[in-house]
Amino acid sequence: MLKKYAIIVAGGSGSRMKTELPKQFLEINGKPILMHTIEKFAMNSIELILVLNVDFHEYWNNLCIQHSFTIPHTLVKGGNTRYQSVKNGLAFIKEKSLVAIHDAVRPLIKQETILEAFTQAEQRGNVILAVPSKDSIRRMQDDVSIAVPREDYYLVQTPQVFLSDILIKAYKEPFRNEFSDDASVVEFAGHKIHLMEGDSSNIKITFPDDLLIAQALLKK
Amino acid sequence: MLKKYAIIVAGGSGSRMKTELPKQFLEINGKPILMHTIEKFAMNSIELILVLNVDFHEYWNNLCIQHSFTIPHTLVKGGNTRYQSVKNGLAFIKEKSLVAIHDAVRPLIKQETILEAFTQAEQRGNVILAVPSKDSIRRMQDDVSIAVPREDYYLVQTPQVFLSDILIKAYKEPFRNEFSDDASVVEFAGHKIHLMEGDSSNIKITFPDDLLIAQALLKK
Repeated sequence: MLKKYAIIVAGGSGSRMKTELPKQFLEINGKPILMHTIEKFAMNSIELILVLNVDFHEYWNNLCIQHSFTIPHTLVKGGNTRYQSVKNGLAFIKEKSLVAIHDAVRPLIKQETILEAFTQAEQRGNVILAVPSKDSIRRMQDDVSIAVPREDYYLVQTPQVFLSDILIKAYKEPFRNEFSDDASVVEFAGHKIHLMEGDSSNIKITFPDDLLIAQALLKK
Repeated sequence: MLKKYAIIVAGGSGSRMKTELPKQFLEINGKPILMHTIEKFAMNSIELILVLNVDFHEYWNNLCIQHSFTIPHTLVKGGNTRYQSVKNGLAFIKEKSLVAIHDAVRPLIKQETILEAFTQAEQRGNVILAVPSKDSIRRMQDDVSIAVPREDYYLVQTPQVFLSDILIKAYKEPFRNEFSDDASVVEFAGHKIHLMEGDSSNIKITFPDDLLIAQALLKK
């Protein structure tokens, strides 16, 4: 099997961060979300790269000391966009490998899902987690909402896992607005994106209520 | 203002129910989900109609006695499909009014949201709750997943509120596969569907983890 990397992307631009503590530092059960997330990837010789806005490197290092957090990881400067942050992380990948990209604020990912995603990506070139929608879906078209067939749509999560050479080459393309995640970058480079069933509890912590939700699910 | 009805639809066909207790009867904080949901609508002279599979009418009546649950509501037989269940509920609407349709397993709806939806529906003819997706979205096309612009899509919730005459007339159309919710029925009848911003915590209890989530959010 190829060597495995995981790039944990802690988003948020410097400007947005000034007003409030970025979500990845909020605590769940007494520990920052980011630590919960990193712990899930700390297995089976996955090499960890954490991309974080440089303004928070010292803060993070202090948090690690306070929490006696000793999981080895390479700390990398974030960019102004998620796209640039991933690109900065990719610069630290030195050999042909499998690279998982994961949102820092998805601490509920399961370890067996991570391993399964690496296995499938090695076989198929890439794989991303996705779940069907529990809700009906509508598309806006000229200011009118139109019902679309829900069964044709999937909600995309992370990790998204790729062969390193494909991913690094795809990220040579300059940023485009439609690059909403890593899969869209690799798709633009001409590759078919493979889906693997995610888990509805693998939520992205976005709103205050999501903290309560993550707390309940992590206690389980 | 027009008279207000709320039809609470407790889905599930008889056959599916045989294997397990339908989700609306599972308890959160010692009380069935369905009671939490009905309590949210018990205000401002909203007349309540509960549509429930007939096999569970006696079970429900006993639950109401056990829990001293006295909120007045008309109990109506469910159909084999959600479409038929709503239609059965609509048969009890006798005057021109506003009708909210709501999933029994969305107990986290907020009272102010319900009232705002009634107000907007009176002004615009209809309104449904919807939220933007936090996740990227992909559409399957000939077995290949394609990234779509997330900002064009909305995830639809309930309540969905309509002027009664429009809704009742729309439900005269025989069932079609694309009728995934009430809005799609009314849209098929030629009406533009209006969206109102929902709340990401207004989840549909579908998976076991959703029970833990609802429990955490209801405690708040």
